[in-house]
Order: sequence, then C-alpha cells, then structure tokens
Amino acid sequence: MSSVNAETLQTLSDIAHRLRIHSIEATSASNSGHPTSCSSISEIMSVLFFNEMRYTVQEPRHPANDRLVLSKGHAAPVLYAAWAEAGAFPLSELKNLRKLDNPLEGHPTPKLNFIDVATGSLGQGLSCAAGMAYAGKYFDKADYRVYCICGDGESAEGSIWEAMAFASYYKLDNLVNIIDVNRLGQSEPTMYQHHTEVYKQRAEAFGWHALVVDGHNIEEVINAFKTASEVKGKPTCIIARTFKGKFLPQIEDHDSWHGKPLGKQTEVVIESVRKLIKNQSDKLGFELLPIKTPTSQVNKNDLTVRLATPPNYKLGEEIATRLAYGTALVKVGQSNPNVVALDGDVKNSTYSIKFKEAFPDRFVECFIAEQNLAGVSIGVACRDRTVAFASTFAAFWSRAFDQIRMGAISQTNVNFSGSHVGCSIGEDGASQMALEDLAMFRSVAGSTVFYPTDAVSTERAVELAANTKGVCYIRTSRPNTPVIYENNEVFEIGKAKVVVRSESDYATIVSGGVTLHEAIKAANQLKQQGKNVRVIDVFTVKPLDWQTILESVRQTGNRVLTVEDHYAEGGIGETVASALLTNAPSETFNFKKLYVKSIPISGQPQELLERFEIDSKAIIRAVESF
Amino acid sequence: MSSVNAETLQTLSDIAHRLRIHSIEATSASNSGHPTSCSSISEIMSVLFFNEMRYTVQEPRHPANDRLVLSKGHAAPVLYAAWAEAGAFPLSELKNLRKLDNPLEGHPTPKLNFIDVATGSLGQGLSCAAGMAYAGKYFDKADYRVYCICGDGESAEGSIWEAMAFASYYKLDNLVNIIDVNRLGQSEPTMYQHHTEVYKQRAEAFGWHALVVDGHNIEEVINAFKTASEVKGKPTCIIARTFKGKFLPQIEDHDSWHGKPLGKQTEVVIESVRKLIKNQSDKLGFELLPIKTPTSQVNKNDLTVRLATPPNYKLGEEIATRLAYGTALVKVGQSNPNVVALDGDVKNSTYSIKFKEAFPDRFVECFIAEQNLAGVSIGVACRDRTVAFASTFAAFWSRAFDQIRMGAISQTNVNFSGSHVGCSIGEDGASQMALEDLAMFRSVAGSTVFYPTDAVSTERAVELAANTKGVCYIRTSRPNTPVIYENNEVFEIGKAKVVVRSESDYATIVSGGVTLHEAIKAANQLKQQGKNVRVIDVFTVKPLDWQTILESVRQTGNRVLTVEDHYAEGGIGETVASALLTNAPSETFNFKKLYVKSIPISGQPQELLERFEIDSKAIIRAVESF
Repeated sequence: MSSVNAETLQTLSDIAHRLRIHSIEATSASNSGHPTSCSSISEIMSVLFFNEMRYTVQEPRHPANDRLVLSKGHAAPVLYAAWAEAGAFPLSELKNLRKLDNPLEGHPTPKLNFIDVATGSLGQGLSCAAGMAYAGKYFDKADYRVYCICGDGESAEGSIWEAMAFASYYKLDNLVNIIDVNRLGQSEPTMYQHHTEVYKQRAEAFGWHALVVDGHNIEEVINAFKTASEVKGKPTCIIARTFKGKFLPQIEDHDSWHGKPLGKQTEVVIESVRKLIKNQSDKLGFELLPIKTPTSQVNKNDLTVRLATPPNYKLGEEIATRLAYGTALVKVGQSNPNVVALDGDVKNSTYSIKFKEAFPDRFVECFIAEQNLAGVSIGVACRDRTVAFASTFAAFWSRAFDQIRMGAISQTNVNFSGSHVGCSIGEDGASQMALEDLAMFRSVAGSTVFYPTDAVSTERAVELAANTKGVCYIRTSRPNTPVIYENNEVFEIGKAKVVVRSESDYATIVSGGVTLHEAIKAANQLKQQGKNVRVIDVFTVKPLDWQTILESVRQTGNRVLTVEDHYAEGGIGETVASALLTNAPSETFNFKKLYVKSIPISGQPQELLERFEIDSKAIIRAVESF
Repeated sequence: MSSVNAETLQTLSDIAHRLRIHSIEATSASNSGHPTSCSSISEIMSVLFFNEMRYTVQEPRHPANDRLVLSKGHAAPVLYAAWAEAGAFPLSELKNLRKLDNPLEGHPTPKLNFIDVATGSLGQGLSCAAGMAYAGKYFDKADYRVYCICGDGESAEGSIWEAMAFASYYKLDNLVNIIDVNRLGQSEPTMYQHHTEVYKQRAEAFGWHALVVDGHNIEEVINAFKTASEVKGKPTCIIARTFKGKFLPQIEDHDSWHGKPLGKQTEVVIESVRKLIKNQSDKLGFELLPIKTPTSQVNKNDLTVRLATPPNYKLGEEIATRLAYGTALVKVGQSNPNVVALDGDVKNSTYSIKFKEAFPDRFVECFIAEQNLAGVSIGVACRDRTVAFASTFAAFWSRAFDQIRMGAISQTNVNFSGSHVGCSIGEDGASQMALEDLAMFRSVAGSTVFYPTDAVSTERAVELAANTKGVCYIRTSRPNTPVIYENNEVFEIGKAKVVVRSESDYATIVSGGVTLHEAIKAANQLKQQGKNVRVIDVFTVKPLDWQTILESVRQTGNRVLTVEDHYAEGGIGETVASALLTNAPSETFNFKKLYVKSIPISGQPQELLERFEIDSKAIIRAVESF
C-alpha cells in the first residue's frame, strides 16, 4: 500500500487533469500537436513531478537532479505543462507552443533548460536514459535516478531492446522505464494493443523487473515507483495500461485521433475534464505539493582535455591511424578523469581497447548494438558528466545515423570515431567498407569531420575533438601508413596542411588518409618526371579549409584534383568543388576528382586502391590528363 | 527421435567435417577470414544442405526453392563450402576465397547465384528472411521455407528483435531462425555466453516457438528442424549451443581467435579434423546424400509496371506530392499484381494508406521499426517476387541507412519513399524534418534519387522507379503545392525540366520540390521587375541532368543559383557545383546556393522557408546579389 494520504492522491489527480487541460489548450492554440498522447500519461507525469522525482526547479539540469527522458517526444505539451506547474516558467507561456522562435517546440529540445536530449524520432530515449543511469551508477557513483517514458508503438523499435539488454546487463537499478501502453499507434492500433502481458514477458526476458499498472490510477503508479526504488541489481519497467485521450469525451480510446488538436471540441472537452478536478483553486501545483530535492551532492565536472604527452613518433614510421586513435584516447584519458570510451565489440580493431586496458572503469562495452552505442554515448555525456569517445567500424555508424542526427539536435558533444574506412580495408569486402561516412557525418548539423592522415595528426584530432562542441567524427584507416608530421606540428580545425610544395607546382592534389599517402607517392614520382605537384592534407573535411586550397590552386594553374577512399557523393570532391565555385566566381578551374566509382570487392588493399583508381598510378594519370 | 538412420547421421557428420576443413583451407589460403565462426555451424550447415532444405543446385535462386540467409556473413567460407559440396561449383574454387575478382568474397553477395542478400553488417539477415517468408506465405502462397542463421553476438542488434516481433505477429511458420550461440564475440565473450535459456526466454517472449539444441549433435539438429516444420502459426527459433572453433585443437572455445586464419597451425588442425571423418572416400557429399527438391511450383513473375491510368490533374491544382505518391501507388498496383507496399505506421501521412485501401492483401504494415521495414522490403523483393515500395517519413529512413547501404550491395530493387522533407513540414520541428536524406540516398551505390515537384511528376517518378534497377528513392513533401505539368508530360530519369524560360534570362535557378515553387514565385516577381530568370526542376537529383543545367547556365550569363530544403552537405548545390566544375573547365561561374543553414525550429511552413532563407524572397535577394 502507498504511504501517500488521500489528500495527496486527490491533489495529484487534480494536477494530472490540469496537465491534461494545458496540453489540450496548447495544441488547440497551435492548431497542431498530440493532445491525446499527452492525456494517456498525465497521471504518470503528475506523480513523477510532484511525488517521485527529486530535482531543483531553478536549475533543472543540475547534475544531482533525477533525470527524465520523454522518449515519446510528441507528448511534449504535457512535459512542458508539468515543468510550468512545477514553476520553471509561467503557465501562460504554454499557449505559445510550436510558435516561431518559442523554445516550446513541437518536440522537446535542449534549448529548454529542462531537457537533456531531443526526442521525436521514436525509440531513442531509453538508450540516452541508460547512458545517464550508467554515468550515475558507475562514473558519478551518485544516487540520482533516471526515468524514461516510452510509447507502446515505439517499443517496436529495435533500439529500445538494445537499451533494455544494455540496462539489465549493467544492472542499472537506478533506471526506470515506463511504457505507456495506450493501445493506439498513429495509423492503426499497435501490435499488441492492451496485451500488457506481452510487454511484461519481454521486459522480464530482457532482464528487467517488470510490473503492470493502471496508468491512470495514481496510487498504483506511486506504488510502482516505490517498488522500482526497492529493486536492486536490475532496472524496473513499469508497464502502464492507459488510454489515448483518457477523459476526453468521444475521443478516449478512439482511433484516428493521433496528432490532432481538438479544434471545435476543445471547449467542451476542457469543460468536461475541469469537472474532474476537486480543488478548483489556482493554488494547485507545487505550492500544494513540495517538490523533492536531491539527496546527494554531485559536482560539476571540468571537461578540459589535452594529450597528457605529445605525439611520439618517428617520421616515416608505419602506424595505422586507428592505432594512433587508441594511443591518443589513453593520453586524453590521462589528462582528465572524465574522459570515457565506448565501443561495439570491435575494440581490438578500433583500438579503443587500449583505453579499456588503461582505464577499465571508464570503458563501456556496448556489444554489437550501434544504435544503443550512440544513444548511451549521448547519455553519458549529458549534463557535462563526461567527455565521451565512441568507436566502431565507420561503416556501422550508418546503423546509428538517426541517433547521431538527433544527437546534433540534442546538442551533444560526443566524439564518434569510425575505423576501417574505404576499400583500403581489403579482403573483408564491401559490407565492411565505409564509403558513405563522410557524406553522412558532413550532413550532421554543426558537425566537425576529421580525416587524419598519420599518427601525429590523429592524436591531435582526438585532442581537438575532445574540446570541440557538437558532434565530432574522426575517420581512421586500417592500413599502416607512414608518419608524415613532426611530433610538434600544430593542428587546428579548419586548417589544411600543404604537405608537398615547390615553387613550380603544376597542379594541386587535395586528399586525406590513405589516399593522401598515394598522392605523396604520386608527387614523388611526378617530380622525377620533372613535374611538381602540390599536395594538401585536408585534416578536417568539415569545416573545409577552402582558403588554403584556393590559394594553392591559384598558384598551380587552377588545376585541382581531389582523391578519396569514399564514394563521390557528399565526399571531399564535392565539398571542394562547391567551395571553389562559391568563392572564386571569376576564375576557371581544371577540376578532376578520383573516388570509388562502384561497389568494391574483396582483394588486397593495394590491389583495390589500384582497381578503384585512387592509387598513386591513377593520380599520376589524372595529373597527366590535365 | 529422428527418422534418419545411423549411416546418414554419420555421413552428415562427415560432411560437416569436410565443410570445416574447407573453411580452414580457404581462409588459410587467403590469409584472412573467420574459420572459427565457420566451425561452430558446420554441423548445422551439413544438415541444412543435405537433409533439410529443398532446392535445385542448378538454379539456386529458383523461386520454388527453400531460402537460406547467413546473417552472420563472416562465416561465408562454410556457406561457400556447402554449395560447392552440393555441386554448385568445383571444390577447388574454394581456395580462391577473397581473391581479387573472385565472387567468393569475404562476405556473401548476390554476385554468387546462390546468394539472395548480402550480409556482413550484422543483425540484418533476419529481416530479409522474414520478408522472404512473408512473400512465401502471403504473396506466393507457396510452401517454400526460409532459414536464417544468426550469430549470438549479432543478436544484440535491435534489428533482430524488430524482425522477431514482425515474424511472430504475421505468424510466419515457414521461417526458422537458428541462433549460433558459440559464446564468443569479436573482442570478448558475448553478453550471455552459453546461457541459452536467455535466448530461449527472449524468443518465446517475442512470440516464437523456441528450442535449445546441441548445435554439434547432428540428430538434435535434424529433430529441431522437424519440430520447426510441425509448428503452426508461429516461427521457430533454434538456439544452438555451439563452440567457436569446434574440433580445432587448442582453438575451440578459446578467446582471441575471432577472424583469424590458422596460419602455421593449419596443417595440424586439418589433420586432426580429418581423423574425425569416418568415410574418407572422396565420394562424400551430394553423391551420397540426395538433395531434396522443391515440392510445389512457383512461377517466375513479370515485374513490368506502369501507371494504369495517366495522371489526372488540373494545372494549378494544389496537391501534396506525398498524396500523389499514394495515388500513383494504387495505379501501379492496378497494372501489376506483384506490386506491394510497406510502411512503418505512418501510412496516413505518407499516403501509402491509399494502396492499403485498394489492395489490403498486398500491403505490409511494419509498425514503428524502420530497420526491419527496410529489411523486409528487401526480402519480399528478392528473387523478383514483388515490386516493393516502402515508405515512412524521410527523416526516419536515416534509421535504416545501414540496411539500405547493404541493400545496394544486395542488388535490391526496392523503392523507398520518404515524406515530410525539410523545414517545410512546419510545426513538428527538427526531429521530424529530413534535411540529410538527399546526402544519404545519393551516397547509396547505384541509387536513383527522385525529387518530384508536383503531382504529375510524382506519379511518373513512381512509375519510373518501379521499372528501375537498384535502390530508388522518392522524396515527397508535406505541403500542398500547385500542379505545374500537363498530364501528358513525359519524364525520364536524368532529365531535368526547364519550367521557366525566356530569351533573355539573367540567371538559372536549379531546385526541386517545395523550393522549386518558391523559385517560380521568385521568377514571376523578378519578371515584373524586368528581370527574367530561368528555372530548372531537377526531377532526379541523381543522376543529375548536368547537361541541361550547364546549357541553361551558359545561356544565362553563367549565373546559377541552387535552392533546396536540405542542408548544404550532399545536397543539390554540391552536386550541381561538382558537375559544373567537372564539365566546364574553361568557364567561370557565378554560383550561389541557398539551403537550410542551421537546425530548424517549429513554426508555420512558410515562416520557416522565410526564416531559413529558401523562400521566394531569399531567392530574389540572391538573384539580385549576382
């Protein structure tokens, strides 16, 4: 039985109805939105905000606070209403929902100081919540708890089940997932409608404590949270049987009411809901129910990071950039205890294993589940708890494109590293070759895309990424390649390096990674033939140092050749072309690009570079054809 | 008890060892690959190929054959060995594994006539297999069965669980998933090692019949398949407890042997395995064990598709291209009974619901699980059983990028449609806006990317996509926009349309979709100011009709402006810039591009077009700034 008295229960019920009304009013004012998806969780929200969660309204993202992730982001209005009722901002503001320049957007984003991660692409919130819970239990060793609300429809997303497996594997008993089983999806009933036993069975099979409650029964919801707080060694899943549009006459549990404001029915429905409120005073809310505050102290973290020791290589030494990535991870880890690394069971290939060996307690093995790997990374980095580096094969980051895209909207600072790029990986074949990763990561809003060419520049890329806001991507290669920079070379984001130059260069070659070395080879051979060429290492593909490139191109007869172990679309060639055309309207260019023109095959790395015409021979042919 | 006699059991065991030896020899010859991952499923493969599956070796992809998807594609050598033993090609060919230009690549691809879908990015095979099983049960109404082999490590992928839910929801009792629980992942033991009860509990919770067997016990494996064939109304999951590197001395069940050829140990290990073979004659294999043949007839399908009736709109009529997509789907569906449509619970937004209403038996609701939606689509289209159209919000195709990337390697002909692109969707906010989809689909190898501007061109895009090989993508928009083409307008892939022109055009504007209409508006206003501009509708962004664009640009003072409701990276502007620069080396261009420069916000569609400077006013400003 609940320890909550009848009066509190009534107040929580009243608050739930107020949240319901706010949601209806806001969506009617904006003439868009999802009032029925708000109504199904109004009681849950009331209990969370006014009976369960411990937080400071004045600083909603204080690190000691409990966290809430509304994975079913389309129910944003009820979340906004709860924060308004809690006192975070005036209730009157709710009617500006979805209006231009109002941060109360259609789906939650961290422009609001009470949102950690953007939601709205379904099935992603639980991974982020699991990351926060992991950080709380293992990094912060604090007692803050993490709550996540998922829809029943979105529970069809595999990413949910990746997160479910992760959370139980790591015994995240500070995590509660509430599944709002309101029976109705967008276009038809969900797969399992009100068969809550299906969700319970699955949650249990995935290692969670699971219980089914009537999601509109305040006392049952309170008791469920109490049970969750007492379960040790596993997370708890509260399966809440609810109704979409609960308490909205002629709308509750009706199909075809997804994502629709109530229009002409608004006033009648509100009137009906209002009658359910016992205490009609405006004093309801946090004034009546004190909000619980955090019980433990959690300090804010300094996230300044540097390489503990500078790169230490010999010029010409053959080192794969993926290996240098691992070395650099350890060094940034030495400089700051808040650096953490995550991987998807390829740590012995990406070399994040070196970090695990150095700092086993700061490494998170996420197994073969890249969507969850991305989401957990975003989660552990929230509220500046950690500087997170997540790695897998670059090709497999395509698995998590949606999570990374949402990560940008979430203002995440996670650093993603992808190894084994391009056909230069060799025998494994096309499925393992990233040939679209530059296109993908370049298209992520506000991203920085590093493509280091040797071990020295890779170490500096890691250091720069750690200190750069927004999504960073570090593209590393499988083959060993020679060190071309001195250990004290200084690198900057958006600054390319001219690595081969003379006073009489015939053309400029722009590249990065493995093909940059091919360009150097080509330049050496061309030089022997009496033809000098300039070679530029982009270092960052985004932002692109078009100024350096353009300057070089102008000094080399406006002949420019790009070379990349990547498909043409969205790659180095296109960004260089666009930059030249945009910034030099009165000039002509002799522009050529070399790239992987068709799906590669198995073969030895050098055979494939030759076959797909991105090796030194192809470069020489291209230069000679100018 | 099995109905198989002792002699057959022995032969199947002998074959398993032969497969094991072939896998070792092949990977040692190529000095790369995964022999230990082959050994764990050698008995299963022997039983499948020589006792269970019904197929014609001469025509491995005959539509009546049973299907096998090796989701754990890195075990390719044992799959190749099984087909060689079955007689598909000479055993001697196996030693050319992973060699340049040999189709026996590191991971399976359909360049081999016995492979339906490429695998190697883990966790994808089961969705494809489920699609094949769906086609068998509901479209072909045939009795062919579908087998899938997943690794235990890859069972952490959420896409597996999306497929598990889908298969039981649709009662795919013609589908068998074998999970090879060999305990070891790439870099460490799997999450559940040999706890087969975890897999059993999960499979059952996801609605499957599940049983655990010793995967190296031939009789148990045979009996499990027999049980599976008798289970009605649900798919069967065979959880096979196995050992990685089984029967390989000092390697079996040892960590750190993932993806490694045996090197110097090759001969000793092979000798040891060879001793396990009872019948040392070379006559083992299909000569001893007759391969079962298909029991029912399945015809090859004609997949020629056309619009049953031409577009029927009035010029100026306001129709969203997403609605025209739904209309066109019905029309191609009328022309050919093999057209099918799939969606992820947004059919009332993408308008694929019109197809469901017309042809309920040919519509597959995949619920909110886009990875599985993509995989099932690829599966139902295999062996030319269907012409598949899959739709969801364009933003959510980013969820399935890896599946679509692999789809290209699988030579799929699936047509993907994404609605709700760009900031023109309005109030829902950034999470729902596709602003990277052109970058993503352009980067898919061999893809065709349609960006139709009005209802007429959308209908033709659907018709053309249906008849085009490779991945096709149709980008549709949410807002209503006027019809600008006559109903009899002819469209071709790679052919742009000049929609506004005069003899004295000052500049060329290149666009598509919603922003094309803004360009027309701008052109009309500029005309009133006495300045004519040319407007080009790209129709297909890939392939880009650079010839028409270049010709127009030359006729308009080499001034060109691109406009797109998309981020800059990988979009229309970059592809146009790259094409101009590549194809006109002796010309200067005054090039500008308008695109969405930062993460959009909520607001009304027209407000957002204005705010993000891709509306007619921004276009006019850009033209005036030339």
